[in-house]
Amino acid sequence: MKVLVINCGSSSLKYQVIDSDTEKVLAKGLCERIGIDGRLVYQPAGSDKIKTDVAMPTHKEAVKLVLDALVNPENGVLKSLSEIGAVGHRIVHGGEKFTRSAVITDEMLKKVEECNELAPLHNPANIIGINACRELMPGVPMVGVFDTAFHQTMPAKAYMYAVPYEDYEKYGVRRYGFHGTSHSFVSKRAAEVSGVDLHNSKIIVAHLGNGASISAVLNGESVDTSMGLSPLEGLVMGTRSGDIDPTAVQYIAKKENLDFDGVMNLLNKKSGVLGISGVSSDFRDLLAAEEEGNKRAKLAVDMFCYRVAKYIGAYTAAMNGVDLIAFTAGVGENNGFVREQICEYLGFLGVKIDAEANKVAGEEKKISADDSKVLVYVIPTNEELAIARETVALVK
Amino acid sequence: MKVLVINCGSSSLKYQVIDSDTEKVLAKGLCERIGIDGRLVYQPAGSDKIKTDVAMPTHKEAVKLVLDALVNPENGVLKSLSEIGAVGHRIVHGGEKFTRSAVITDEMLKKVEECNELAPLHNPANIIGINACRELMPGVPMVGVFDTAFHQTMPAKAYMYAVPYEDYEKYGVRRYGFHGTSHSFVSKRAAEVSGVDLHNSKIIVAHLGNGASISAVLNGESVDTSMGLSPLEGLVMGTRSGDIDPTAVQYIAKKENLDFDGVMNLLNKKSGVLGISGVSSDFRDLLAAEEEGNKRAKLAVDMFCYRVAKYIGAYTAAMNGVDLIAFTAGVGENNGFVREQICEYLGFLGVKIDAEANKVAGEEKKISADDSKVLVYVIPTNEELAIARETVALVK
Repeated sequence: MKVLVINCGSSSLKYQVIDSDTEKVLAKGLCERIGIDGRLVYQPAGSDKIKTDVAMPTHKEAVKLVLDALVNPENGVLKSLSEIGAVGHRIVHGGEKFTRSAVITDEMLKKVEECNELAPLHNPANIIGINACRELMPGVPMVGVFDTAFHQTMPAKAYMYAVPYEDYEKYGVRRYGFHGTSHSFVSKRAAEVSGVDLHNSKIIVAHLGNGASISAVLNGESVDTSMGLSPLEGLVMGTRSGDIDPTAVQYIAKKENLDFDGVMNLLNKKSGVLGISGVSSDFRDLLAAEEEGNKRAKLAVDMFCYRVAKYIGAYTAAMNGVDLIAFTAGVGENNGFVREQICEYLGFLGVKIDAEANKVAGEEKKISADDSKVLVYVIPTNEELAIARETVALVK
Repeated sequence: MKVLVINCGSSSLKYQVIDSDTEKVLAKGLCERIGIDGRLVYQPAGSDKIKTDVAMPTHKEAVKLVLDALVNPENGVLKSLSEIGAVGHRIVHGGEKFTRSAVITDEMLKKVEECNELAPLHNPANIIGINACRELMPGVPMVGVFDTAFHQTMPAKAYMYAVPYEDYEKYGVRRYGFHGTSHSFVSKRAAEVSGVDLHNSKIIVAHLGNGASISAVLNGESVDTSMGLSPLEGLVMGTRSGDIDPTAVQYIAKKENLDFDGVMNLLNKKSGVLGISGVSSDFRDLLAAEEEGNKRAKLAVDMFCYRVAKYIGAYTAAMNGVDLIAFTAGVGENNGFVREQICEYLGFLGVKIDAEANKVAGEEKKISADDSKVLVYVIPTNEELAIARETVALVK
């Protein structure tokens, strides 16, 4: 089956067409600046990107342009839209309502809307994309795949915050966790590749990208993760602070003369390794600056690695042990220096890295030494493929 | 030398007179409701508490009443005030200005005042107490002992938050840590008792009281601790939330229609095990409720223990190993159930508890089994004695 995978933001829309039988990507691309001016990027497999500036006042026009490109006689990868057997939509927040992916119906969408408040920047955009697709592809089965769903197996001791219980009951204040599709995909794949029995395993997945989170996966189920009510908590990220003293929210607001929205913007957009280094949110820039002797760039990288190592220690306690650590996403897949620096803290667990193997970038590979007591792998994540698989599983 | 130890709050003042040669407490007590109505509690060693309702409009009257009680011919423990060789004052926040205790002078107090902003509820009260003592005991040397000083050895990767660097430079936004006197005292004592070489050791101190914090002490120096800019961060406490997603600060404020002060009050006073359980901030009440089947009380205890265990895992990574874990303060010293529940997560470190030894309450004792790979001790903290020792060391 050919599956169209859609990841819709407030002014952008990423897409892929995946053949679920071969699991190959047939075409991919994105629409940018929706509602502003508009640009379509379209890339059939094996060809260059084709960029077209074209007006897309709403997501509906954007979806229409994607569909047109896919069946374009010149470089389209489909003969007709009827080849699309299903559409898989990424949805950020499923709250406690969705513990797994779900076929999209009117009723289901109503439940998604009820979660909007928990992800006011993301969920409404996801829904707009879904509605545009439903309008343009009536009758095609669609599935919503939630970023939060994989983490719904967390026990209460991991997902509850120590705030008044009523704030959980009335307003849903709790840890939800994100990147669930990635944590699920990578933990399963890591077990597969390593020969570890997923259903009898303790796996830690470090999803280290511009957004970064880490999860403890016990017997195939997420039992803890570093992102919380929102994607702001946890690790140091590209521009997000991750964990800070809650008092610092007020303290910074007072000092900087900011209101709640202002300080949240500072913590989301101007913090992380960018805020510390003053150089960049990109690790390639940071490591280059570090090499040139930039102390704040070095501090940012040190803080990033130190916090990841502490979370690995914490999640090892959460599961009372760890069999396998998997690095994934931009930094995790490509940056051997960062992986090495993290693993240097973990000698007490018997973690040993094979320096040669750890040179790998962007490829599935075991990077632990043969006498390491914990397996360490690089496992490239593939959220689109994961969404396509979930979609096929539900519509078949 | 006889040392008067003073711990001054905004409407209270705790005191002890300690003979630094024998390290015995000669008398102790407190003044309550200063500026409201006033009550003096005075207890000479080996005798009952004497409580007197007496007006104390300011801290000066409170100090005067304490001094009068100490030399009272009937039950005073001093013949004359001239026996007091020095006064040691607890000061909450020394910012980055104080890396150790300091003799109190006008100039030194000015520097303390510069830290007030970081502890607006505590430092001004500490200073009021100091000034009252200086007025009433002119010429007696006095020393300030800071809650934050022991943690000033933390490396930047541990004390920096990933917020814009300017917020650290301009406003001092960073982790300071608290309970330093206790973490210092207990780590030193644990090394002494266990025969571990403090200067070549990895010790984790879990100070678990109504306020709770945990520290990683490497070779005798604090290298990380769970409290941060303020005492709100870190572990689940009696009424404080500890770690939460910074987004939750805004989310709760919005939902509960609170301003910054309102939501900080909620997180400091109505959260923690009290907020979760709805029962109490006291672990004796919680465990009694848990035994009667109260699920929220059980959840509160589970969350508390789980988070301590995760921090122990994290700090073991921070030091790449751990030799000794020391439990201290109200819950840590007295609650074997909590200690056991925490240590159950730590089998991967080779931690084994001796169930019989773990029945101990309030006494110095090794509670790990003989074949445990990590030593585990109960070490009662004694902040007043630590303050007295610091004071003598500086005035001798």
